[in-house]
Amino acid sequence: MSGTTDRPVGKVYLVGAGPGDPGLLTVRGEECLRRADVVLYDYLVNARVLACVRRDAERICLGRHGRTRIWSQEEINARMIQRAQEGKIVVRLKNGDPLIFARGAEEVEALVRASVAFELVPGITAALAAASYAGIPVTHRRLASAVAFVTGQEDEDKEDSILDFGALAQFPGTLVVYMGVTTAPRWTTSLLAAGKPADTPAAIIRRCSLPDQRLVTCTLGEVAERLAPRHNLRPPLVVIVGEVTRLSTSLAWFDKRPLFGQRIMVTRPEDQAGKLVERLEAAGADVLVQPAIEISGPLDWGSVDEALARLSEFDWLVW
Amino acid sequence: MSGTTDRPVGKVYLVGAGPGDPGLLTVRGEECLRRADVVLYDYLVNARVLACVRRDAERICLGRHGRTRIWSQEEINARMIQRAQEGKIVVRLKNGDPLIFARGAEEVEALVRASVAFELVPGITAALAAASYAGIPVTHRRLASAVAFVTGQEDEDKEDSILDFGALAQFPGTLVVYMGVTTAPRWTTSLLAAGKPADTPAAIIRRCSLPDQRLVTCTLGEVAERLAPRHNLRPPLVVIVGEVTRLSTSLAWFDKRPLFGQRIMVTRPEDQAGKLVERLEAAGADVLVQPAIEISGPLDWGSVDEALARLSEFDWLVW
Repeated sequence: MSGTTDRPVGKVYLVGAGPGDPGLLTVRGEECLRRADVVLYDYLVNARVLACVRRDAERICLGRHGRTRIWSQEEINARMIQRAQEGKIVVRLKNGDPLIFARGAEEVEALVRASVAFELVPGITAALAAASYAGIPVTHRRLASAVAFVTGQEDEDKEDSILDFGALAQFPGTLVVYMGVTTAPRWTTSLLAAGKPADTPAAIIRRCSLPDQRLVTCTLGEVAERLAPRHNLRPPLVVIVGEVTRLSTSLAWFDKRPLFGQRIMVTRPEDQAGKLVERLEAAGADVLVQPAIEISGPLDWGSVDEALARLSEFDWLVW
Repeated sequence: MSGTTDRPVGKVYLVGAGPGDPGLLTVRGEECLRRADVVLYDYLVNARVLACVRRDAERICLGRHGRTRIWSQEEINARMIQRAQEGKIVVRLKNGDPLIFARGAEEVEALVRASVAFELVPGITAALAAASYAGIPVTHRRLASAVAFVTGQEDEDKEDSILDFGALAQFPGTLVVYMGVTTAPRWTTSLLAAGKPADTPAAIIRRCSLPDQRLVTCTLGEVAERLAPRHNLRPPLVVIVGEVTRLSTSLAWFDKRPLFGQRIMVTRPEDQAGKLVERLEAAGADVLVQPAIEISGPLDWGSVDEALARLSEFDWLVW
């Protein structure tokens, strides 16, 4: 855009991918991915979101906890900036929304310091998806005129390192706690100690919007116990605390679909699988496409022609 | 799905359209709109979001404040249910997210009572879009570990009709107030009276994500005065209160694009306008497409052929 140099001008798009279901990417996010020369993505991003990325684009996964090395924030910033300065269109693809507990601000600050052009593309954050996919209206005309998103995982560098869950106990609305698994004993105790009733209804939603979404309803007093390691309710999950969680039983639709919880392998030839996969997924199934056959012409039609000529001699034709 | 009747089975999709920019619709929301037989939409929904609706689909606008009759909630529910019971695919398209201050819960409750199948498709709520498009990280590793969405417009039926802004004054994070224009004197006074400092930084974002987005930064103590009718800062807008709003100056990108604030009319023939419109919009312009010419062959080539034959006699050719 500057017009003063012949070098192509790079740009970074910080894009929110949504929480899981690839359909929750925005139309604008998809456009950015289609145009990208380089995509840096968090491990948690659904691989199917990347399906629209050009084949010749560079794809950089930023590491998986416990499996591969996790890139540091400094390394991520450096690579984004370097690629943009080479004139590339860079998409930094983040789970959920780039500005809700995603350190998007730090990445933007780094881009500003390096004078790299950027745009932000918001995404569906886990709280919104959990609400829609678990049938929990986090705001409700009669039950909740406010909703708060809170992190259970605070930055150790911050001076007041423990978020004031005492003040949150007085919050007049629904609470949605992100990244609160390991810290659950601490934050639930703080809420209870500050006077939030132990029987406040709560819901734990794991892998929201994905075919293996899990919903556990309980009370605030039970949340820490339900999140104990032996129950295997591991991240990613959010905990919703408030009266509105009682509605999940009556307003749910996602896990009531007839094939919800069923994993179905489709072995049809890939080019014939599409319609079937679509219908199975609409009915709630977790579909794996693993083509076991491919229909094509034989290398030599001789034996077919010979058999056809003797068709009247056969009793059975088996397909 | 029931299999016990031959009548086609209708379904209602409650879809969040996002706050303005049509690109903020989700891929799944777009799929639902493409399939819809009937679309019931709020006036605030960007007309361009409806571009993907089938031409033969029924489009029902639910009314514009001060211009046309506004449908009551009961009428909306009744029409949705009626059309679904006729076997139609119905999309109820709501601004923002269906479960954030949008009465989505009431509509779902009505569908459940009528035994109408439904799905919820979340949308980008105004707070998320305002954050990304105004460069305000509503959560921030050092400045805000929590964010609350609050309505300034409460239901009159509710017993504790005035939301407890006293309790909100103690909220340890960013506040985003929706629908708080006319009630600003009341809610800001409540926050101040409960001890929230008058010099807390604030930002007012009107028509976020649209080409005429407006951002006004001030302090909490000044919000009510800035929203007074004479300043013409009318809905739709959100007010963000918190330290993070200070960052909007350095992290903004949307209103810094070279053509931001410029309304440009493109008079090219419609089928040639696409690329130009795309580039102008990417540079921030508000583009109106108003084709003034259409290029096509003449009804009679005779005079053209005659002129071509005498080409050497002309001094000028004017296009």
